Amino acid sequence: MTSYPILTLLSDFGWNDVYVGVMKGVIAQINPQITIVDLTHEIPPQNITAAQFNLLNAYSYFPEGTVHVAVVDPGVGGMRRAIALQLATGILIGPDNGIFTGFLQQPILHVVELNSPQYWRVPNPSNTFHGRDIFAPVAAHIASGVPFTQIGNPIDPATLLQQPIPPCTATPTGFTGTIQHIDRFGNSITTIPGEFVQGKAWSVQISKRSIPGQSIPGHKTYSDVPPGTPLALIGSHGWIEIAINSGDAGHQLRLDWNDRIEVRVEENRK
Amino acid sequence: MTSYPILTLLSDFGWNDVYVGVMKGVIAQINPQITIVDLTHEIPPQNITAAQFNLLNAYSYFPEGTVHVAVVDPGVGGMRRAIALQLATGILIGPDNGIFTGFLQQPILHVVELNSPQYWRVPNPSNTFHGRDIFAPVAAHIASGVPFTQIGNPIDPATLLQQPIPPCTATPTGFTGTIQHIDRFGNSITTIPGEFVQGKAWSVQISKRSIPGQSIPGHKTYSDVPPGTPLALIGSHGWIEIAINSGDAGHQLRLDWNDRIEVRVEENRK
Amino acid sequence: MTSYPILTLLSDFGWNDVYVGVMKGVIAQINPQITIVDLTHEIPPQNITAAQFNLLNAYSYFPEGTVHVAVVDPGVGGMRRAIALQLATGILIGPDNGIFTGFLQQPILHVVELNSPQYWRVPNPSNTFHGRDIFAPVAAHIASGVPFTQIGNPIDPATLLQQPIPPCTATPTGFTGTIQHIDRFGNSITTIPGEFVQGKAWSVQISKRSIPGQSIPGHKTYSDVPPGTPLALIGSHGWIEIAINSGDAGHQLRLDWNDRIEVRVEENRK
Repeated sequence: MTSYPILTLLSDFGWNDVYVGVMKGVIAQINPQITIVDLTHEIPPQNITAAQFNLLNAYSYFPEGTVHVAVVDPGVGGMRRAIALQLATGILIGPDNGIFTGFLQQPILHVVELNSPQYWRVPNPSNTFHGRDIFAPVAAHIASGVPFTQIGNPIDPATLLQQPIPPCTATPTGFTGTIQHIDRFGNSITTIPGEFVQGKAWSVQISKRSIPGQSIPGHKTYSDVPPGTPLALIGSHGWIEIAINSGDAGHQLRLDWNDRIEVRVEENRK
Repeated sequence: MTSYPILTLLSDFGWNDVYVGVMKGVIAQINPQITIVDLTHEIPPQNITAAQFNLLNAYSYFPEGTVHVAVVDPGVGGMRRAIALQLATGILIGPDNGIFTGFLQQPILHVVELNSPQYWRVPNPSNTFHGRDIFAPVAAHIASGVPFTQIGNPIDPATLLQQPIPPCTATPTGFTGTIQHIDRFGNSITTIPGEFVQGKAWSVQISKRSIPGQSIPGHKTYSDVPPGTPLALIGSHGWIEIAINSGDAGHQLRLDWNDRIEVRVEENRK
Repeated sequence: MTSYPILTLLSDFGWNDVYVGVMKGVIAQINPQITIVDLTHEIPPQNITAAQFNLLNAYSYFPEGTVHVAVVDPGVGGMRRAIALQLATGILIGPDNGIFTGFLQQPILHVVELNSPQYWRVPNPSNTFHGRDIFAPVAAHIASGVPFTQIGNPIDPATLLQQPIPPCTATPTGFTGTIQHIDRFGNSITTIPGEFVQGKAWSVQISKRSIPGQSIPGHKTYSDVPPGTPLALIGSHGWIEIAINSGDAGHQLRLDWNDRIEVRVEENRK
């Protein structure tokens, strides 16, 4: 049996409507053998930053050659381009609106604008659902073996739209950054890479008026502190995160996306 | 490798419980090679109208021969029949409660009542979960090649229960209809087909006391108007819909399912 | 084509983040041919009792040999063991925190601690996401044919951590138990097996101060009573449950997890 690459879907479509199912139907019309994996469809509506964070943090866990479709697309049907990027280990397909910003530091083998209608679902796509009419069908053709260069004309990677990079800067005593994601458990993931504190003693300060200046010590895992106690740790994404053992740090510490966070590195230790 | 048709599932079971997973297990017990696609499981509990709308709008995007199982079934275990319909391009399986109303205008090749227990999970099905005990197993057998006529006795299509068809009537200046679906983005989909206004100048009036008589102009896509601005457009389902660019029309315009909508066609234009 | 067993996933990860997608990517990196079924990912965060209930009620509907991964894991990265159990008809993989309690009455062929890092994703797993780094990859290897005994050292089943068994005791007039699950429809599932009342006349009393001592009669299915009327019935899980026809018993009768319920068996009848 010929084996096709995995095709992943990420969107802000939610599960209440049939939009996700329809994209899968369109893919199956082209090639019913393709295995589809949902990354998430609960990106807050039109939130490109959240889409970018989630796609970037999932990408490296998929097999080489995986085709990732990301549809958070407030500019659908307007002037923004539809694009595909070929990286060393996978392919990205979606709108040119900054959703792939996090990947632009790595070598890009090809970038094309999706302007070959023969690989769309119909020659005259809807103005409001390019996930169904352009992105999903092009992805299905790519996953089925259509050469990357046939799906559109090459464009200059330097012209791709970029989102602002989440801030992280050094200070005399450590680093400052912000909260870039709060997950289902209330774990609040900062923009500060965990490798900056690996093997050291460290703590986190939350710079927010509503919270008394609390120092939250760095630990290895949730159960290193008693239930209900705040801690900081290097999370599974590799970023420093703030959590509460068996609790919800986002809610209980009243944290928000973009809150400013300071990390203090106390001393070296083995 | 033998290729089996896709099997889709639509229900009001939600994702909090294992009901959807259990239906997939039952299908895998019969034939683990079948590919299952979830249309949606977030139909509001017992809302047959919403189920009907969503199934109808997804159907045509799936490959020929796809088997669609729809389980929104408030009358489960009572007198309502369990049925299957063979259409020219696919198969529908579910309760006879109006959930397939939207398909009854097209040619129906066969309709059967599911009264052959050898294709059920067990001869004595539960009174409350025919999705698991009748619909999913029958669908798995059909997708595996059991002839349609073996799963039950033919019944007269004229006896099938129907839901009221969503209203759409012509007026001196255009059309009136209602809102038949509000999607995750707040896009409010009317019962008025977009083809009625294609190539013309048009606008929408919302006939609701709580909303000042606002005329919302027809456009092609969300980004044709500034962010935050209401617009009307022909949505991806093919119906006229009311939206707000980068906003939530359902919430911000206080729209509800079944609200009355008027479309005014202003003039012909190319 | 070689056929692999189904692999199911159950967790409290929700769908908002990419955690579930990442586990599927890791499985596909090991063996992209494995079919994955989601049981549910909406277990309330860290609620081992709910995880246990749902896994137990889904297990028997899957094909023999299915590999079930259950990740509700508040003790991740701490002292709790990672384990796998081989039962007569399937395999369970997850943390040793009581999540498999309901299976410990049946014959257990093997239990191992997952301490063979060659079957993990990386030799140094994250302290916070063993679903990705240990449970999913070990499950993928098992589903791909790695012998059960290679994934870790045997341990004594008697040492496995157990959750308290949901109470159900006989009384002079019937049985008392509690509510162990409230599903999406508000159907409130008790700890009292339906077989105790099969073929008899029976009713349910809710022992809760906020509810006037209401006797709710036992019926066969929802539509046996008029819409809006409470009833008790033997639910699809096999437990006695409290429901309202076309309503939400949990909400309307103000029921909660662990509420005390009494079943009165009135008399024998055919």
